[in-house]
Amino acid sequence: MLKTQEQRLRTHLEALGAIGALPEGGVNRFTYSKEYYEGVELLRKLMTSAGMTVQVDPVGNVIGTRKGRTDRILLLGSHIDSVPNAGIFDGCLGVLAAVEAMQTLEENGVELKHTVMVAAWAEEEGNTVVGLLGSGAFAGRMDSLTNAAIEKMEALGIKRESVPAALFPDLDKIDASLELHIEQGGILDQEKVSIGVVNGIVGIERYDVTILGTKNHAGTTPMRLRDDAMQKAARLIVELDSLARETDPEMVCTVGRLEAFPGVANVIPGEVRLTVEVRAMEPASMNRLKKHIETRFPEGQCSLRTTFQQVPVPMSSICKEAVSKSAEALGLSQRVLNSGAGHDTMILAERIQHCGMLFVPSAGGLSHCPQEWTEWRDAANGADVLLNALLELDQKEDAEFQ
Amino acid sequence: MLKTQEQRLRTHLEALGAIGALPEGGVNRFTYSKEYYEGVELLRKLMTSAGMTVQVDPVGNVIGTRKGRTDRILLLGSHIDSVPNAGIFDGCLGVLAAVEAMQTLEENGVELKHTVMVAAWAEEEGNTVVGLLGSGAFAGRMDSLTNAAIEKMEALGIKRESVPAALFPDLDKIDASLELHIEQGGILDQEKVSIGVVNGIVGIERYDVTILGTKNHAGTTPMRLRDDAMQKAARLIVELDSLARETDPEMVCTVGRLEAFPGVANVIPGEVRLTVEVRAMEPASMNRLKKHIETRFPEGQCSLRTTFQQVPVPMSSICKEAVSKSAEALGLSQRVLNSGAGHDTMILAERIQHCGMLFVPSAGGLSHCPQEWTEWRDAANGADVLLNALLELDQKEDAEFQ
Repeated sequence: MLKTQEQRLRTHLEALGAIGALPEGGVNRFTYSKEYYEGVELLRKLMTSAGMTVQVDPVGNVIGTRKGRTDRILLLGSHIDSVPNAGIFDGCLGVLAAVEAMQTLEENGVELKHTVMVAAWAEEEGNTVVGLLGSGAFAGRMDSLTNAAIEKMEALGIKRESVPAALFPDLDKIDASLELHIEQGGILDQEKVSIGVVNGIVGIERYDVTILGTKNHAGTTPMRLRDDAMQKAARLIVELDSLARETDPEMVCTVGRLEAFPGVANVIPGEVRLTVEVRAMEPASMNRLKKHIETRFPEGQCSLRTTFQQVPVPMSSICKEAVSKSAEALGLSQRVLNSGAGHDTMILAERIQHCGMLFVPSAGGLSHCPQEWTEWRDAANGADVLLNALLELDQKEDAEFQ
Repeated sequence: MLKTQEQRLRTHLEALGAIGALPEGGVNRFTYSKEYYEGVELLRKLMTSAGMTVQVDPVGNVIGTRKGRTDRILLLGSHIDSVPNAGIFDGCLGVLAAVEAMQTLEENGVELKHTVMVAAWAEEEGNTVVGLLGSGAFAGRMDSLTNAAIEKMEALGIKRESVPAALFPDLDKIDASLELHIEQGGILDQEKVSIGVVNGIVGIERYDVTILGTKNHAGTTPMRLRDDAMQKAARLIVELDSLARETDPEMVCTVGRLEAFPGVANVIPGEVRLTVEVRAMEPASMNRLKKHIETRFPEGQCSLRTTFQQVPVPMSSICKEAVSKSAEALGLSQRVLNSGAGHDTMILAERIQHCGMLFVPSAGGLSHCPQEWTEWRDAANGADVLLNALLELDQKEDAEFQ
């Protein structure tokens, strides 16, 4: 089995992680910033060393290409932009492990049937313009940018014409896409499993829920005469937790924000507004929770407004099998899991039939913070599986991708 | 039985309510404002017509005195300052009903054994300096004003020396005090009862409660791996409601404000801060709730800080009996209840042994808003009971007040 070099991968992750590093720990490397373009230049150098030709497309995607015997394409990649005060693994691992895989192929003189493209997608995190901008533009899925997003983008030096210009003309030549990422959750870490075979990226629905009661004096209104919006909200929150657990073991439900009105200690709240976020692979599970909220209180006492909606994205069986088979061949423990977070693969999957993802453990499940950590061996395991899954996919007959 | 005049009481309430009336409804008559002093002048006129000598003391209390055969005193009164956007009954009814009682005594040539003092206490509501300032100064219970309060007061033209100067030198001559007030709750209105005999003014404790969990990604953290501060808070809120109901039928418990941190839809809250307010006559009831909060979660996950504390103030049996007997003699339905709100009587009771209060219905339990309403007949019933309870107290032997 071909294996990548843990030490070299580490060196590259540390070098990229040093770009935008904050004095007090953490990294800021926002898309289209000075630090972002420094990262782009480092990547250009590493990709070139790994034998790839490099292009930076009109929206700032960095795309390295390694020619194969045919023009059929296998796509690897992730992103190098960061959230504020980020760690050094989120996104970067997926890009640098793919570069490491190419370097390993070069060093071992391996020629593939497929042309391999390694991408670092711009603006995955959505801190400067809008999330998934780079992969979305590549896949032709960024047609409906808001004026606000266009203004932000143009202020950062990217013209609106750049978005359609970044559409990849040969999407139909891409047989499959693979993305390695840190889990950003605690399942692999807790279960001491090396590789997560991603079953799918969960759907997300977010609601603003408003619960009405009757505002009243907190001293003079006996308990039996109250219509307390806070009590109603608290009961709903407890119920949603139980309902999520019993409906679907893979579903999560979160109330992250709550505000009571008028919001003072000595007035019974007449109104409570709260956010409910539900994520699941099964639309039926999400619908069950939504239905509960809609029907829990008598007409007029509770309203729900959907503020965000993203459909679940199942991963391709071919990709899942390639990842699983490679992990097994490498003697690495594995488990199937869903991705609870969004990724570039989500939008690529709208145009590329066979998409897959694999995860490596995040210590304590932490991400998007300076404490984000993946052991170097775990990172290299991910690169090894990515490389061998790529080889696995490369050997498939054309018909298997139909 | 002597009876007051409903129509005259109404005319006076409407006249006082017109001072500070807002174009869109509601009243602003804040202590030491132009409107407040307009109210003082109206009162001076009405008290004088009712045969009283009138003094405005150094903190703005308006005190009318009707000489009796002895220098033993019976004290009546309430307040004429208002909250922002107030109704016309809160406080004003207690003052004007007492004036009406004096007018009725005058018209009927009734001489009492007791000297009667009718007071309109300044700044009961605490909108401009600090609540209960007037009655507190009269009773010598305002020694520890904060610098902030003193600054506000002096900016409004009341010198700091005015507070000790307003101490009434003959507190020991006051045999009893009675205050008529609107209920500000919905019990009398709901039960169609005319007179509330106040058993006591409940104690109040307010806590800032902080509940800790573990902040985490709302998508990648499975339900079973969560330590969600919002879920803990919701469970506590539901429990407090049940506990209050089962512990003490007279107790109320309110969570009026809640904030989650970081407070965004897609992050599991690591911390929730909420207010808990408990009111009851029984300190043991309040302690039970407090204990529940303190011991509900493992060490370090929940902390409680007391932000306000006010001990329960039982009313005197003599006063309760006088009110009850008068209501009965007048053929008015009555019930015993606690006052869930604070009143001037609360601070007077720290120095005057025999204090009592009576309530009349508040439509829908509403107060501190333009919708605050008491039927004119209900208001006059209150004045009638106040008058007759005063006569009842006046006839008691000196020894009964010991």
